[in-house]
Formats: sequence, structure tokens, C-alpha cells
Amino acid sequence: MSATLESTPRRDGFRMPAEFEPHQGTWMLWPVRTDTWRLGAKPAQDAFVEVALAISEFEPVTIGVSSIQYEHVRSIFPSRIRIIEMSSNDAWMRDIGPTFVKNGVGDVRGVDWGFNAWGGLNGGLYFPWDQDLLVKQKVLEIENKDRYDSQSFILEGGAIQVDGEGTLITTEQCLLNPNRNPDMSREEVEERLHEYLSVEKIIWLKDGLRYDETDGHVDEVAAFVRPGVVAMSWTDDPADPQYELLCNAFDLLSSATDAKGRKLEVHKIHIPDPLTISDEEARLIDRARRSYNRATGTRFAASYVNFYICNGGVIIPAFGDRYDAITYHQLSGLFPDRKVVQVNTREIALGGGNIHCITQQQPKQG
Amino acid sequence: MSATLESTPRRDGFRMPAEFEPHQGTWMLWPVRTDTWRLGAKPAQDAFVEVALAISEFEPVTIGVSSIQYEHVRSIFPSRIRIIEMSSNDAWMRDIGPTFVKNGVGDVRGVDWGFNAWGGLNGGLYFPWDQDLLVKQKVLEIENKDRYDSQSFILEGGAIQVDGEGTLITTEQCLLNPNRNPDMSREEVEERLHEYLSVEKIIWLKDGLRYDETDGHVDEVAAFVRPGVVAMSWTDDPADPQYELLCNAFDLLSSATDAKGRKLEVHKIHIPDPLTISDEEARLIDRARRSYNRATGTRFAASYVNFYICNGGVIIPAFGDRYDAITYHQLSGLFPDRKVVQVNTREIALGGGNIHCITQQQPKQG
Repeated sequence: MSATLESTPRRDGFRMPAEFEPHQGTWMLWPVRTDTWRLGAKPAQDAFVEVALAISEFEPVTIGVSSIQYEHVRSIFPSRIRIIEMSSNDAWMRDIGPTFVKNGVGDVRGVDWGFNAWGGLNGGLYFPWDQDLLVKQKVLEIENKDRYDSQSFILEGGAIQVDGEGTLITTEQCLLNPNRNPDMSREEVEERLHEYLSVEKIIWLKDGLRYDETDGHVDEVAAFVRPGVVAMSWTDDPADPQYELLCNAFDLLSSATDAKGRKLEVHKIHIPDPLTISDEEARLIDRARRSYNRATGTRFAASYVNFYICNGGVIIPAFGDRYDAITYHQLSGLFPDRKVVQVNTREIALGGGNIHCITQQQPKQG
Repeated sequence: MSATLESTPRRDGFRMPAEFEPHQGTWMLWPVRTDTWRLGAKPAQDAFVEVALAISEFEPVTIGVSSIQYEHVRSIFPSRIRIIEMSSNDAWMRDIGPTFVKNGVGDVRGVDWGFNAWGGLNGGLYFPWDQDLLVKQKVLEIENKDRYDSQSFILEGGAIQVDGEGTLITTEQCLLNPNRNPDMSREEVEERLHEYLSVEKIIWLKDGLRYDETDGHVDEVAAFVRPGVVAMSWTDDPADPQYELLCNAFDLLSSATDAKGRKLEVHKIHIPDPLTISDEEARLIDRARRSYNRATGTRFAASYVNFYICNGGVIIPAFGDRYDAITYHQLSGLFPDRKVVQVNTREIALGGGNIHCITQQQPKQG
């Protein structure tokens, strides 16, 4: 059973663990939207399969899928991957899945945030998002985890990064965007994060990546490697329109102290050379009135720090770019105790995200 | 994770526990078919709610519901009842849910039988039954239980009753019906039940109740109260067209010995006076090409032995009949250690079944 609690995680002694803490498993969703994913979503599905199989070498993976695709999806995965019927409007489990919190004796609960498809009727990426809204509760009921109702606050999981020791990194561009929580001040947003994630210190970056459809999710810019250590997107090219915002983010991060008073160690991970939607790719994406514009030549966000840390592993993107191998070695060095596995995720990036965006960790019970 | 096993329960040391053994919980589905359930299924939904609430006083209850009805159904139940998205073609969890089996150390697995909506294109009750077919696997995956694939053998859970000690009761009318497994002999059917349920002794009744849409499910005729003790439907009225078949069943049961060599103790539970579909009820049922005929004046099956035994309780039908109170006292006597709860289930009987038909027990792990 999954009770809806009147309290808050902080009051009950629950905090959001970092991604690098032990997992019970990983949740994903199955991509089918033909206005997000080109060619009937088939190439993206292949990439999702590769990501899921890679994670499943390290921990249990559950994939939610609508009734219509259930038989097909069940048939293409080995039985070690759990397939569950779960409707959704798209497949970004990071943003529509619950944020799990954990207490000192290892009990796990979930936070159910509001969601408006990254901006609602004011810049959101599709309409409606009715099924996405129910995913958090459905996941928690399947897992018999109690639920904190914070639906009055719109938050996507990709808009925050935590170190599990009281520090959270986010961006003003996203969390203070008028298309998310227009009536809340910065202080009120901080208070909400404080109450529901038990974080003490919030590090505010100005902007996320340009070309990112989410209004600047931090998970394309920076990720905690462990407490006190951050990997961040970077470019050495002053001509890149993202150069300035990345310089700004680097300055903010490298001068910041975390909740424990530590100065952050910041590692620059160079982004791939600019990637744009090819003519063939643009032609094979369906159109809907509110679709994001994926015209030929449009540059799309691509960042290696949108990786996913799982038990003993790190699943990182590749783009067929000259930085793929460099990044592999760099991240292998940063994660000496984990196996780094690289998956080509251009097809996921074309849809507007990457490995971190399509996964959600459930912390280990106990 | 839920692996599909190549073996059989018997070979692995698993047997089907009796319903009166301890449960982990109860599975149900949400009724919506307007050609099964009158008045847009609303009165039946009320009855399902009452049954679910009654069971939930004794053990956890999970209800599967399609995405379309999810929000509504979640909103009308207290949070102690788990609501899970699960598509189905109708709501007979006894017949489309998995049959759980258990071994000596308390591990639980499930059997996935074939299903053809009680007769397929040769007398089945609706078309298609594509979503029903997937329910067993979906339940097992949610519960992380391994699965025995016996889909080549069509069997509904309501067609068998077991005592958990090697005895199974069924009917020839159903299990040997050409619309179920036309190419299997009686011996082959017995062999399948032997392998997948670990039963040693099969007691074959000839027929189930007349007016029963399922081709004679045994769960309208007889139920084990405990090993060696059976409650069976009965009528004292020689003019009732069911009199002869019930006499026949009584003779068979009371002369039978079970797998342990015990002679069965058989208790007669009088059925209610004949119940027929009223004009108002008949008018408010939608029609489809393959719908069962629910015309005004049609008699429908009604039996008190279609009860459900749960942890510490027995949920039994009422029909607004003079036998309701008599049965309550009789069954209270037969189950001295359980609380008997009576729910008016005329609306469920109108759809073709009763409490046992809409529930499926999951045995306690361990």
C-alpha cells in the first residue's frame, strides 16, 4: 500500500539520496511519440533498448509501456528487464517519475511533484500531459511506497542535481521561469526544495544549455560525481553561443561551497562539436500544433554529463564525435570504482534529452 | 524480475495452495464493459467497491484499471487499496489472473494459462480477449514472481477448486468442453493439472450450474471450506431445472475420497430462489454482436458458494433473498475462526459471476 502523507520529507527525516548511492533499480518509459521521435520512434526505441540493457548489467530495470505496445516491448527484452503497463505522454522518466527520498533506517518514499510538460501552455513541449501527471503515483503504488504530495509545485527531476549531503544545484532559467511556478519567489522555491528534499544549500546557476528544450535543465550542464566533485559541460570555443553561459556556470560552481562547507572540485567535460538535425531526420518527424521545431539544420543540445550513475556503473552518451573517446577516458578516471559504458544516443538527443533524462533511480530500501 | 521458466511447478516442488491458506493479498479488476454490466457499469462498480472494501479489512487489495478510469478509481478508494494501471477486456480476475503456486520454503510463482473468454469463437462471451490474455504476466511482473508458461492449455481459475493437499474438483462440462482444449483427452487434461498444480486426485463433476455463462465453472457449485470439507450449492425443489445436476454432484462429492484418502464432508448451501433479469435491468445493458443474451426474464446463476476466503474472513454473497440470512449463519458455523461478511452482489451476478469470480488470491510469501 502507498499512503499519501500530510507531512513533508524533512519533517519525517527523509532526504533525497544522490544518484551515486545504492539503487534498488532504475525506472524508464517506452518512447512512441512520433512528433518527438523520428521515423515512428523506431531509431529512438533502439537507443532506449541499448541504454536499458546497459543498465540492466548493473541493476534491475523496469520499463513502463502503454497497453498498445506492451506485447511488442515484452517480446524484445530479456526477462531480467521488468515490463509494466503504464501510460505516459512521452518517455522522460527523469522528469515525470517520482523523486525518491530515504530516511536514516533505509525506508524509501516518493515525492509527487506537479508537471506541465516543461512550460504548460506557455512554451510547453506537447499537449496534453495528463498521463505523465499520473506516472509518479503509479510507480509509487507498484512499489508500495508512501507518497508526499507536492503537486502544487512544478518540478522536473532533470532540473535538480543533489549530492545527498545537503547540496542542490539548479538553474534560475528553469526554476524561476514564469512558465513553471509564476507565483513563487526564489525564497519560496528554496523553501519547497528544503522541505521536500532536505537540502540546506542551493547553488543557483543562471542558465542551462542553449538549444535545450527544457528551459535550462541543470542535468545537461552539471552532475555530481561524488560529494564535493562535479562534472560540467564545457566548450573551449569562444565562438560557440554557449561559451559565455558555460564560463559563467564554471565561475559559479568553482567558487561555490557545498552544504558541508567544501569548495567544489569542478571537472570540465567538453561538449561534442555542434550537432544539427539533418534533412533526412527532419523529414521523418511528425508535426503537431505544439510540437517543438525540429527543422533541418536546427542545432540540438548534446552533453556528455547527461550520464546515468547506477550500481557499479556509469552509462554515458556517445554522439559519433571526436570527443566520445576523450570523454570515455576522462569519466573513467573520475569514476575509478565504476565501469563506464558508452552508448550512442544521438537518437535520444534528437528528441531533446539523453540518458539521464530517460532514467530515474529508486534508492535501495534498507 | 519475473523469469519465464521452462520447467513445471511439480518438477520444481511447487503446488497450488488452497484459498484458505494465508494470503499476501487479493487482486481484482475494475468493471467497465457496458455489454456485461448494465447502466454503464455503475451499479456493478458500486458492488465491486463494496467487495474490495470488505476484503481490505482483512488483507491488502490491489485493483487493476485501464488508464482511462485510473484517476476516477484512485479517487474513490482509500489509499490502503492499491490501484494499478492494467488493461483488461472485462473484470473477472479469478479467470484471467495467474494461478499462484508455492513451494516448501514459501517461494511463490505463477502459472500463466491460456484463455479464450470462456469458449473463444465457439460460444465465448466477448471478442476480443487480447488484453485479458496479458493480465497474468503483468501481475507476475509487478510482483516479481517467476512464471510458468502453460498458455497452450486453456483454463480459467473458476473452473477448479483445490484443497492444497493434492485434491482438485472440476467439471466435465467445462474442462472437457470442445470450446476449450478440443485436442486434449481427459487423461491429458489430468496430466496438465497434475504437472502445473501438483494435484494427485481429480474429482470430476458432470455439470456446473445451469444459467451459468462459463460452461459450468465449479466455483458456482462447490468450494473447499478446509481439507476434507466442502460447501456445495443445493436446491430442495425437484421442479428446479438444476435439481438433477445438483443431486448428481452431491452423490459424486459425498462418495468421493480426496488425495489423502479422506471421505469428503459435504455441506448443502441452498441457492436463492430463481433470479431473473428485470425489464429495467435488461433495457440498460448495451448490445454487441457476441454479447451474452441478457433479455428480460432470463434466469441468471446465483450461488452462495461463490464466496471468497481471505485472511481471517469470508466474503459471501447476498441477493436480497430469504436464504441470505440462513446462509450467513450456516457459513458462520462452517468457518468458526473467520469473520463472515455478506455483500449484496445481485449486480455482479447479473454480469455472470460473483465474489469468487472477481477475486484472485496471492499466497503469502514465506
